Amino acid sequence: MFEQLGVIGCGLIGGSFALALRRAGMVGRVVGYSKSPSTTEQARRLGVIDVVAESALLAVSGSDIVLVAVPVAAMEATFKAIRHLIDPGTLVMDVGSTKRDVVDAARRVLKDRIGSFVPAHPIAGKEVSGIEHADGTLFQGRQVILTPLPQTSAELLQKATNAWAAIGSHVLRMTPENHDAAFAAVSHLPHILAFAFFNAISRQPAGRDYLSLGGPGFRDFTRIAASNPEVWRDILMANREEILKQTQHFRHALDAMEHVVRTGNSEALESLIRSASEARAGWQMNSATPHTHR
Amino acid sequence: MFEQLGVIGCGLIGGSFALALRRAGMVGRVVGYSKSPSTTEQARRLGVIDVVAESALLAVSGSDIVLVAVPVAAMEATFKAIRHLIDPGTLVMDVGSTKRDVVDAARRVLKDRIGSFVPAHPIAGKEVSGIEHADGTLFQGRQVILTPLPQTSAELLQKATNAWAAIGSHVLRMTPENHDAAFAAVSHLPHILAFAFFNAISRQPAGRDYLSLGGPGFRDFTRIAASNPEVWRDILMANREEILKQTQHFRHALDAMEHVVRTGNSEALESLIRSASEARAGWQMNSATPHTHR
Repeated sequence: MFEQLGVIGCGLIGGSFALALRRAGMVGRVVGYSKSPSTTEQARRLGVIDVVAESALLAVSGSDIVLVAVPVAAMEATFKAIRHLIDPGTLVMDVGSTKRDVVDAARRVLKDRIGSFVPAHPIAGKEVSGIEHADGTLFQGRQVILTPLPQTSAELLQKATNAWAAIGSHVLRMTPENHDAAFAAVSHLPHILAFAFFNAISRQPAGRDYLSLGGPGFRDFTRIAASNPEVWRDILMANREEILKQTQHFRHALDAMEHVVRTGNSEALESLIRSASEARAGWQMNSATPHTHR
Repeated sequence: MFEQLGVIGCGLIGGSFALALRRAGMVGRVVGYSKSPSTTEQARRLGVIDVVAESALLAVSGSDIVLVAVPVAAMEATFKAIRHLIDPGTLVMDVGSTKRDVVDAARRVLKDRIGSFVPAHPIAGKEVSGIEHADGTLFQGRQVILTPLPQTSAELLQKATNAWAAIGSHVLRMTPENHDAAFAAVSHLPHILAFAFFNAISRQPAGRDYLSLGGPGFRDFTRIAASNPEVWRDILMANREEILKQTQHFRHALDAMEHVVRTGNSEALESLIRSASEARAGWQMNSATPHTHR
């Protein structure tokens, strides 16, 4: 149980975390700050936060748990703005999709207060953003990755684990390096492919006609192409080394498929498709509960 | 209203068409043939067909509408097997995902009976196959593309249009060439990318660990990677010329994204993502009814 949650960045993720923590009876009061006053005001009207903070620092004042839910590129400036009020008992978490860059920023800025910081990445989201889409069940049955540092307080790490578990998430721990390598593969690569695919189709002269013929497979394959441009610009930039390794793996796999198609080797083509098809058919999304909110 | 439907190939698509036509009160009797007698027997037990035919030819005997729902590669042999009983009043349709190859096979085999053939491609399917998944609402709200030939009987083309409209499909007409170019872009390319993506991940040493971290975006992006290997081998081979054009378009779009990521040009990256994101956000799956069965 926490006395006060300070949310910095009242968007989809920050707002959903506040709703979820309250729903779980894990928090007394929620204070929120956003760059735009109208966003914070809306969060208050929607009952997502109780009190509007006039600055990021004031959102930390009196809070024993702080969620920094700002774009990855704004993380360092936010840490600078709040570091003076982080004391050894304050749990501070981010929700960034990349972890090495956030951890580096935290080390640079938080210095001797780094022990309060528990880097977090909840594997949940929607293709819509904004406080109006906040959803207290967003993290239910979803994985959340914590990437603690050697200096991270064991007690605060346990509190972080309890908070995410209380709102239905399945908590995993990884190093920031392993996190970024893994998510380059299963999240960042699919996004870059989906963006490139959509651009490839829509820029052809008959692209508009083609798009009108997309069916359910097209719909699902391209869903992530609608993701937020600023958020994904930051993610792809922050993790570019790992992502460019993954695009190389992908290019080799695509080369192999194109080669067998071009040379008419239908046996080899079937075998490449079969290995993908069987692996995908056997895949199941890891989740803490069997029937989860989407 | 048809007197008798002959279904050749009692799988997901053939079975669903039979159920749908019966549901719409458009057919008196359904006769079915499959290569495997146990499949046809199951179709009869499930009430999808009324009578088991001992051969493809016998499924045509007495039928005024015939659906050839066999893999694209088996189409020519099936046409050969049934051509003697196709008379000018018999409507014959296929359901293949490629049209030029099917039309070529029909021209070669059906000769003076080609007027009975209305090439059809319903944009519907599931990642499961088999008669046990047949579903009378599968085509509801979905597009079906008809690619008639100059020789196609106008009367039978109208009957085909009526049959698909009666089961809730939105009927479009295209040339076989335009069909194959468009579906290379919106269907065949996504499949080849999804197969290549899944292979690229699962063949890495840490692939299994990576896969365990896939979330909802990964799930939707890779759904089509589970598609049937024989069916997709045939589609990719049959339409390879158009598909290889599309992979080139895709490679250029991917090159552009990789280039801006590698050179750290975040403004250009944001603009590439934004064009994909806005186009996808504005895209809506074309459907005959606003709320359709998935």
